[in-house]
Amino acid sequence: MNNRETSADIGVFGLGTMGSALALNLAEHGFKVAVSNKEAEWIGPFIAASGPLAGQFTGAADLAEFVGAVSRPRSILFMIPSGAPMDAMIDVILPHLDSGDTIIDGGNADFHDTRRRSITVEKTGCHFVGMGVSGGAEGARHGPSIMVGGTKESWQHLRPMVEAIAAKFEGAPCVDHLGPDGAGHFVKTVHNGIEYADMQMIAEVYGILRDAGGQEAADIGRLFESWQNGPLSSYLIEVSAAALQTTDAVTGGPLVDVIKDQAGQKGTGRWTLIEALKLGQSASTIEAAVGARGWSSEKQTRQLAEPLLAASPQTASVPDADDLQQALLAARIIGHAQGFRILAAASDEFAWDLDMARISEIWRAGCIIRSALLDDFASAFRSELPAGELTLAPAIRDMLDGSIGALRRVVAAAVLSGVAVPALGAALAWYDSIRRGRGTANLIQAQRDFFGAHGFERLDQDGPHHGDWAPIAKT
Amino acid sequence: MNNRETSADIGVFGLGTMGSALALNLAEHGFKVAVSNKEAEWIGPFIAASGPLAGQFTGAADLAEFVGAVSRPRSILFMIPSGAPMDAMIDVILPHLDSGDTIIDGGNADFHDTRRRSITVEKTGCHFVGMGVSGGAEGARHGPSIMVGGTKESWQHLRPMVEAIAAKFEGAPCVDHLGPDGAGHFVKTVHNGIEYADMQMIAEVYGILRDAGGQEAADIGRLFESWQNGPLSSYLIEVSAAALQTTDAVTGGPLVDVIKDQAGQKGTGRWTLIEALKLGQSASTIEAAVGARGWSSEKQTRQLAEPLLAASPQTASVPDADDLQQALLAARIIGHAQGFRILAAASDEFAWDLDMARISEIWRAGCIIRSALLDDFASAFRSELPAGELTLAPAIRDMLDGSIGALRRVVAAAVLSGVAVPALGAALAWYDSIRRGRGTANLIQAQRDFFGAHGFERLDQDGPHHGDWAPIAKT
Repeated sequence: MNNRETSADIGVFGLGTMGSALALNLAEHGFKVAVSNKEAEWIGPFIAASGPLAGQFTGAADLAEFVGAVSRPRSILFMIPSGAPMDAMIDVILPHLDSGDTIIDGGNADFHDTRRRSITVEKTGCHFVGMGVSGGAEGARHGPSIMVGGTKESWQHLRPMVEAIAAKFEGAPCVDHLGPDGAGHFVKTVHNGIEYADMQMIAEVYGILRDAGGQEAADIGRLFESWQNGPLSSYLIEVSAAALQTTDAVTGGPLVDVIKDQAGQKGTGRWTLIEALKLGQSASTIEAAVGARGWSSEKQTRQLAEPLLAASPQTASVPDADDLQQALLAARIIGHAQGFRILAAASDEFAWDLDMARISEIWRAGCIIRSALLDDFASAFRSELPAGELTLAPAIRDMLDGSIGALRRVVAAAVLSGVAVPALGAALAWYDSIRRGRGTANLIQAQRDFFGAHGFERLDQDGPHHGDWAPIAKT
Repeated sequence: MNNRETSADIGVFGLGTMGSALALNLAEHGFKVAVSNKEAEWIGPFIAASGPLAGQFTGAADLAEFVGAVSRPRSILFMIPSGAPMDAMIDVILPHLDSGDTIIDGGNADFHDTRRRSITVEKTGCHFVGMGVSGGAEGARHGPSIMVGGTKESWQHLRPMVEAIAAKFEGAPCVDHLGPDGAGHFVKTVHNGIEYADMQMIAEVYGILRDAGGQEAADIGRLFESWQNGPLSSYLIEVSAAALQTTDAVTGGPLVDVIKDQAGQKGTGRWTLIEALKLGQSASTIEAAVGARGWSSEKQTRQLAEPLLAASPQTASVPDADDLQQALLAARIIGHAQGFRILAAASDEFAWDLDMARISEIWRAGCIIRSALLDDFASAFRSELPAGELTLAPAIRDMLDGSIGALRRVVAAAVLSGVAVPALGAALAWYDSIRRGRGTANLIQAQRDFFGAHGFERLDQDGPHHGDWAPIAKT
């Protein structure tokens, strides 16, 4: 029997990095939290280490006891590895729950799984919430950006708690209910895709300065730091500026110079792309970023290739700092625009009715891609957008107008000098494709009709047509 | 009871464009063919229209009769829509077959389905062959390139027939048994991915000449025709040259000028990419091609965007014809190299032991991507390849050495003048990524460790490390 005086507002199962941080954040905001963990021996030390917050916690190794410690209707947040462990937990927790209780998955789940689990759980009269949490451990502890998908009823119950613990942008909590079932997890997945693209673009600018410009890491870091006062102001520029200026205790030189150039990835970038492809979309900046991480992992091949493959550099000057800043601004806008296009396509496909302005707003603080630009994007989405395209909003067009020339000069200089700029180049290629009323796919349609009789449309007549193609004379 | 005198060597079910063409091709090469079709009324007219070959065919609307007309062990080729129809056909045909008979799926199936179907069918004692056929209707009729996946036993029986009907390169049939289960369909999928990339690159060169160079379609067609005498000699250049020189009967102008610039796609390009991503691979040229087709379909948005989005072109000269030829050569080599990387990854993953030299050889004639280069690739794969990379073979490196400078100049000129070159740019970005021993992923690892404590490796020490990151001072 619960004692209403002492029963918890929420249960948190899973006391790893992210789970612990969220539990402490909830406690600090005055909520009583029941905590549990697969390894029961983590529970006591976690509460003991929480110091003055310890009184907010009820620890329970036993699942029935853990659930029983939470006041009804219960919210039980799981911060455990995604995939099979979550399915297993749903099976064992459901018999302990009552109708109206809510299971929350706060991990980086595949939104297809979230959709499937929502159906399973909601059949029992309970609710299921897929909740994307961005901001890393630090964000989870002191204010993450939170993307919630699930039923409206569960949101009403959850709302005061997540609004309390979320990051604040000018006082407004960076959390919202974005739609049913997988909406929250999908938005988090695309957030990560945009993050991949942005990190890669910053790395490409670093590469230009280092490899074409011959600059030291700390100098590049100071340049990035100066950009924090301009339109690129963002957490990722801050992180990059700080990282580039950090000294290695072992060598006394820049720490980045001894870090192996071989990037890992946990899958959300790839998921974004696979979903985009299934939706008929193509986010070239995210593709470039995921590709670049993959190629980076082939360090042995790259080392073998370096002396073998001709560089054949062409005459080019090193872009100046202002051009690099403007180029990165243009490419960052385009990277985000591509992410929002994926969100729009998914919103149509899954009937989520995603609100792009709200998504921009809750990304303004707490999450990894937080930046000054997101406030501009929120305003743009609040106004009438031609064709729903972020890049066509007047304020965004103005920014592109002032920066796209720099992106051309930077990409051309990199391409000529032999520095790889897959994401910056992909951003520009998309821009040049989408702004041309008459593209070149007419030739592709001609090719397809020539060899495969696929047919084509004409500009001047309705209906499908076939060409009476004249083969070239064989010599 | 079959009469051995008159029983057929093979059964062909499905008399659409490709099925009819293959049946006629088989008949022309002396094989007796039992034919059937879902719509029974197609059978008689098909045989009647086959003229002098009519005596080679036995038509049967009834499935038992159709199967009974084929000599044992039977080979039954299905040329029907992929997906559910194939599963349904397997269910209805299996009860009519005997142990040792073979079901062949000659459509563009998803190789995962082929793997699944192989298991189902082989449990019954029958064989299942997934057979990729490239070359369009014309190829199927007079000599396609054929990629076979399945058991060795079924291959022994099938071999004389497919070798007879396949395209010949200097007398050698362009067909082989490439591996078990889904190997043939997967190789066909990647073939189509490479085809997408090559078509897109040709369209980009056309775009440069048309939009930056102001050239007429027929002039561009004549230039492409002249390239048929050089290293770009290929079916796709031939098709493009012919298409660009074809006159429209309605307007009297070039036909391509009235074709809508909105390209369709049937899915194999996307499949290639999704599989590549699942394998941890990234084929940037194919990504660019699939993306470009998707963006081309948004013609209304592009027309709306054209007057709104700044072009901001920068000073650039139009690349000369020789530079364009060399640039396309470099990009084509890279597009193929990326395709072969996907094949190598899949071969490892599914234990197919794919022979890249044989694949290159059977692509030298009959298929859409047939080109002079494929003979060079076959030779390269026959020799010792550093790290298994096609681009590192001495002869291929030499070609790249002579052409990569031109690719740099062409991409830079296009980028500066505002012509979209997503695939040419993506090819160069990959080349510049893979040939650099020290990349820029060290900064990405620094960022990831900074905000997510993901850890990194050092160049000078083993084991995972974490940085003691110094935040930048807040102002």
